[in-house]
Amino acid sequence: MFESAELGHKVAKKVYDEEVPLLREQLLQAQFELSESSTFQTFIIISGVDGAGKGETIKTLNAWMDPRHIRTNVMLKPSAEELERPDMWRFWQVFPPKGKIGIFVHTWYSQALLDRVYGISTNSQLDQHLERIEKFERMLVNEGVLILKFWLHLSKNGQQERFKALEKDPKNSWRVTERDWKHLKLYDKFIRVTERTLRRTSTAEAPWIILEGADSRYRELTIGKAILQALNQRLSAPKNHATTLPVKVTVAKSDNLSVLRSLDLSQTLDKKKYGSMLAKYQGKLALLAREPGFKKISATAVFEGFDAAGKGGSIRRLTGALDPGLYRVIPIAAPTEEEKAQPYLWRFWRHLPRQGMITIFDRSWYGRVLVERIEGFCSESDWVRAYEEINDFEEQLIDNRTLVAKFWLSISQEEQLARFKAREQTGYKRFKITEEDWRNREKFQLYEQAVCDMVDHTSTEIAPWTLIEANDKNLARIKVLRTFCELIEKAL
Amino acid sequence: MFESAELGHKVAKKVYDEEVPLLREQLLQAQFELSESSTFQTFIIISGVDGAGKGETIKTLNAWMDPRHIRTNVMLKPSAEELERPDMWRFWQVFPPKGKIGIFVHTWYSQALLDRVYGISTNSQLDQHLERIEKFERMLVNEGVLILKFWLHLSKNGQQERFKALEKDPKNSWRVTERDWKHLKLYDKFIRVTERTLRRTSTAEAPWIILEGADSRYRELTIGKAILQALNQRLSAPKNHATTLPVKVTVAKSDNLSVLRSLDLSQTLDKKKYGSMLAKYQGKLALLAREPGFKKISATAVFEGFDAAGKGGSIRRLTGALDPGLYRVIPIAAPTEEEKAQPYLWRFWRHLPRQGMITIFDRSWYGRVLVERIEGFCSESDWVRAYEEINDFEEQLIDNRTLVAKFWLSISQEEQLARFKAREQTGYKRFKITEEDWRNREKFQLYEQAVCDMVDHTSTEIAPWTLIEANDKNLARIKVLRTFCELIEKAL
Repeated sequence: MFESAELGHKVAKKVYDEEVPLLREQLLQAQFELSESSTFQTFIIISGVDGAGKGETIKTLNAWMDPRHIRTNVMLKPSAEELERPDMWRFWQVFPPKGKIGIFVHTWYSQALLDRVYGISTNSQLDQHLERIEKFERMLVNEGVLILKFWLHLSKNGQQERFKALEKDPKNSWRVTERDWKHLKLYDKFIRVTERTLRRTSTAEAPWIILEGADSRYRELTIGKAILQALNQRLSAPKNHATTLPVKVTVAKSDNLSVLRSLDLSQTLDKKKYGSMLAKYQGKLALLAREPGFKKISATAVFEGFDAAGKGGSIRRLTGALDPGLYRVIPIAAPTEEEKAQPYLWRFWRHLPRQGMITIFDRSWYGRVLVERIEGFCSESDWVRAYEEINDFEEQLIDNRTLVAKFWLSISQEEQLARFKAREQTGYKRFKITEEDWRNREKFQLYEQAVCDMVDHTSTEIAPWTLIEANDKNLARIKVLRTFCELIEKAL
Repeated sequence: MFESAELGHKVAKKVYDEEVPLLREQLLQAQFELSESSTFQTFIIISGVDGAGKGETIKTLNAWMDPRHIRTNVMLKPSAEELERPDMWRFWQVFPPKGKIGIFVHTWYSQALLDRVYGISTNSQLDQHLERIEKFERMLVNEGVLILKFWLHLSKNGQQERFKALEKDPKNSWRVTERDWKHLKLYDKFIRVTERTLRRTSTAEAPWIILEGADSRYRELTIGKAILQALNQRLSAPKNHATTLPVKVTVAKSDNLSVLRSLDLSQTLDKKKYGSMLAKYQGKLALLAREPGFKKISATAVFEGFDAAGKGGSIRRLTGALDPGLYRVIPIAAPTEEEKAQPYLWRFWRHLPRQGMITIFDRSWYGRVLVERIEGFCSESDWVRAYEEINDFEEQLIDNRTLVAKFWLSISQEEQLARFKAREQTGYKRFKITEEDWRNREKFQLYEQAVCDMVDHTSTEIAPWTLIEANDKNLARIKVLRTFCELIEKAL
């Protein structure tokens, strides 16, 4: 979930200085239109880890936009009067009216999060709290409110460095408090609770937008652009259906980093080493699958990747280690007539493994947010809500002790071209390359974007994605095998 | 919530025999159109208390409609194979395809309910379970599934009588099991858990339809008509927005009973008795409001009723007992400009009482599902989803220990006419009668329907409605005072 927000995003001063004037002008224009139409209000939620720049972000937003039409609410500890009312009361008191923007720092999420981090509440209670929040936000959306939820993230090291830097700076040292250092110690716990929280409350109508908070220029540009995008989207939506449209915000490419582009595809594994590691991990997998404990759990492995990235080869290395009775490989192509007559997840539910069994999906339910999104096989609302539905689906698997391993096999565009050509020239591989593959290749950038969005939304604390550097087939196969072994080992 | 389902609904054999042939024809026609279009599937859930006729209902539905296009799933205990998969797996296995109807008995609700009744789960865990169900159903609705959820209710006595009657009948005695008698002992607990469950899972897109199960003719006609209504509604909906429309099913008037019509409006309370009871309860209220415990809670009282039903008079009898500093009366008329620029619940949130205080709403948030519904001040989706939103709102009040008393003051149409005329003839009361009152009067039946729907959806275990027989003002005032005193007493 935070993969994209730990890449070290940075925006150069030159770029920033070039982009900001236009962005400010556009934001003011959108704000003016919002104010003129006065048909809806906008809530901007700025949350995140300590030190990720929440305070500075509010300042910037107020400087960039017309502050007369912004109401900024930094919700500190509730007052005595507030404590006598239901929790949500104090937020209702500070709602901006239609036509205005409300910025909220420390929102209805803070208490839910902190109670769980400090062990005051259980997971069930956290979920109950989050359900109330979800209903609250859905009601607001139905009432016309545009909700933008930003989460500013810092890696653990990032947070520590940030605190140190602030403390050294006389102008900013006051910003770092005892509480901040205390929270740093709780970082891991805090992040786990945050992941659960963001996963369960990121809905199609009020999604979380997660971004890296370390670099102020990156942070400001990204948030500014996202607000602009969402405002314009909504201002131009047909009035009677505005509230049923999903909020679709792409974290703008303020720099050139992405989870896929950050992979080091130049890594290799030589043949000899590959041979011995293959033997090692295949042997390990064979033993793990025979452990008595494995009879009480089950596993799924999802393989997605660019065309010709080597999914088939990796799957065969996995199955090569297993008794044929223990696994099934389900290749996912276009749905059958029978499958089309059912909700899209039906075709995957039917193949879920019994205990002690492994189902390997060669392409999977992620088709919804990849090929179906890109080819327009489903509507935009369909694939936007799919992130949430898929997370719910996988949670059900995990709760049932069905492991979920998810592999994205990544290759460069050049490597893909080379493999396509090789396939055309090799008799027995020629069937593997079709017109469609060449067409898909033209959409490489679209796929790249869809994959990054998919990882941002569905790489959860309970079922993370493993990105595989697959330019080198040996390396890819070993990483798949090793990851899968580790997942089972941890569960036994 | 079950008020409407404990009135002793009955349909005469003659009426039944007259209505069934046409209903069957129409159901077959709708089923045919569903099958031809094959654009969506229909799930009919038949749940309810034991002995309320679930089994017979399925039989009838299969007899009335074309069973080749129906898949009936009586989901008994999960098999070993089913237990190895996530809970929902076995339901996914029996989904009917698009164009077909699936009837489900013992559904995804059964386990959640029973676990709580038997104390295996806590309320938090029940809510967590219900949240998963809600997400599951929302996903199905988004995928195009039409979900109809029927709850067949019997009062405690009704259930007992039904078991006895069945046991006596040699043809049916097998229907009554040891388990049934055991469950009867748990009736009260079961109903409490059911109320929570139905309240939290009755959504605009998949509402619960609650009906009385005792009389088989009433039951069958009512369910048959509801299915027909929902099918036709959906079949004629614009295709691209079909799934965003709320499912609006009125429990058809198969007989002439309703919660309002069942009130005995002929009751009276003579002046002398009224005087002494007024003194008694006003004195009691005054003391209760001064108890130290009252400083830790707060209260709201909601007054709704037909025009001229005597809301003002009842409110004054309440406030007459209280220190002026302890309460506020909030009259609710058309919203101000400021209020219009906010979500509709905002104007009520702002007036919530501090601890130790009482807020009396002279008309309330229920305007949404009464006047706004009838006058078309909001869209149909708006008022249909309002039931759920209002229940959520009141749950927040209750959780905060803010009591919620809800009074509907009911008078007959004749009594209303008499009062209108009297007002016109009394100088100082003339301002109380306007053209609008006369216009509203023409909509008496519409209001009657809206009130019944309101009670069905929002008279919950945590905040029940009290229906007040208000043809006699003395009687009404005492019942209001007594109910309010009892509510506070119970909370202290």
